[in-house]
Amino acid sequence: MEFSSKLLENAVYEVSQLPGIGKRTALRLVLHLLKQPEQQTYHLANALVKLKDEINFCKNCHNISDTETCEICANPKRDSSIICVVEDVRDVMAIENTSQFQGHYHVLGGKISPMEGVGPQDLTIPALVTKVKGGGVKELIFALSASMEGDTTNFYIYKQLEGLQVATSTIARGIAVGDELEYADEVTLGRSILHRVPFESSLKSN
Amino acid sequence: MEFSSKLLENAVYEVSQLPGIGKRTALRLVLHLLKQPEQQTYHLANALVKLKDEINFCKNCHNISDTETCEICANPKRDSSIICVVEDVRDVMAIENTSQFQGHYHVLGGKISPMEGVGPQDLTIPALVTKVKGGGVKELIFALSASMEGDTTNFYIYKQLEGLQVATSTIARGIAVGDELEYADEVTLGRSILHRVPFESSLKSN
Ligand SMILES: [Zn+2]
Ligand SMILES: [Zn+2]
Repeated sequence: MEFSSKLLENAVYEVSQLPGIGKRTALRLVLHLLKQPEQQTYHLANALVKLKDEINFCKNCHNISDTETCEICANPKRDSSIICVVEDVRDVMAIENTSQFQGHYHVLGGKISPMEGVGPQDLTIPALVTKVKGGGVKELIFALSASMEGDTTNFYIYKQLEGLQVATSTIARGIAVGDELEYADEVTLGRSILHRVPFESSLKSN
Repeated sequence: MEFSSKLLENAVYEVSQLPGIGKRTALRLVLHLLKQPEQQTYHLANALVKLKDEINFCKNCHNISDTETCEICANPKRDSSIICVVEDVRDVMAIENTSQFQGHYHVLGGKISPMEGVGPQDLTIPALVTKVKGGGVKELIFALSASMEGDTTNFYIYKQLEGLQVATSTIARGIAVGDELEYADEVTLGRSILHRVPFESSLKSN
C-alpha cells in the first residue's frame, strides 16, 4: 500500500498490529475515526492508555480488578474452598454468566506453551500452589481450553499438588445442549460417551 | 457482559464503537494489548491522536496529505486537465496501484446521501465546481461506487457543470478480469454487455 500521508500510514500500521486486523481493515477503521468528532479518538486513546497504566489484578485470584481484592473474592457468600482455574478474564465472565458457580477463581494469565516460550513462572501457577499449600482449599476445577497446552497446564499443576489434600476435577466436555450429534466433531462426541453421566443426575441439571 | 473492572469495560466500550467490531472482538483486542509491552498501546494511542490532530488535506485535490499540496498534485509529470473524482483516499490508493492513470484526483470525502444527511456542501463538490469553472480542466472521470448515492452524486456534479466545456465519463463496470460469467451478478453482467467495447480496443489494453 502506498499512502499519501505518513501520519495516516503510521496510524494504519499501529492499528494493523492488532490480531486479526489487516491493513485494509485498519485503513477502514482509521478513516472512520477521521470522520467522527475528535472526542471519539481521544476517548479511545485515553481508555486504552489508562487501562494499560492503571490496570490492577486481584491479589487473591489475579483477575483484572480496579480494587485490591475483586468483587468475587470479597463476596462473603462465595465459597473460597472451591477454586475454578481459568486462563483469563473472559473465562471468568463466561462462567459467571451461567450463575452455576459460587466458588472462587484463579486466573492463570495463559497456558503453559513451550512453543511460545510461556513457562509456569510466567503464569500465576506458583501463587496457586502457595494458596493450596496454605490450606482451606478443598477442590480445584480445571476449566482451561481443551488443547495440548491446556492439558499440559492442568497436568503440571496436578503434579505440583501431589501429596496435598485437594480434589481436582475438569469441567465436562460434551455435545452442546441443543446440538445435533451428527454435526459434533468426533473427539467431542467420543468424550461425551466416555464421560457419560448417570441419567438421574442429568435430570437434576434441567 | 459483566466486567470485573470499569477500566477494562471502558476500554472495551471505546474499541467496540469502531465499525464492525463487537464487544467480544473488542475484549479480545484489549486483552491482547494488555499482554504486549506498554509501548505498543502508547504508540497506537499516539498515532491515532496525532493523525486526528494534525491531519491535513491537499488544498488542490483534498486527499489526505502531510504537505499543503500532495505529491500527486505537485508532480509536474501528471496531467492536471484530467481529474478523477473519487470518494476517499482508498480510491486514490486503488487507482494509483494500477499505474493506469496519470491525471489528478478530486477527493469528495463521501457521497451525497439524503438518508445520512450528507449534502453537496458537506463534500468538496463546491471546490470541484470552482476548479472546473476556473478553466484548464478537459475531462472529469467519475469513479464513485456504483450505488444509488454514487449515481446521485455523479448526476449532481454533472448538472452543476452544465454549459462548461468539460467532458465527463465514468469508469467502466463489467466482469472482473479472470472471473467466470456464470458467477457474475446480473447487474454487472448486464452493464458489461451494454457498455461492450470494440474488440480492437480491448486488444490494446492487454
Ligand atoms: Zn479476586
Ligand atoms: Zn493533491
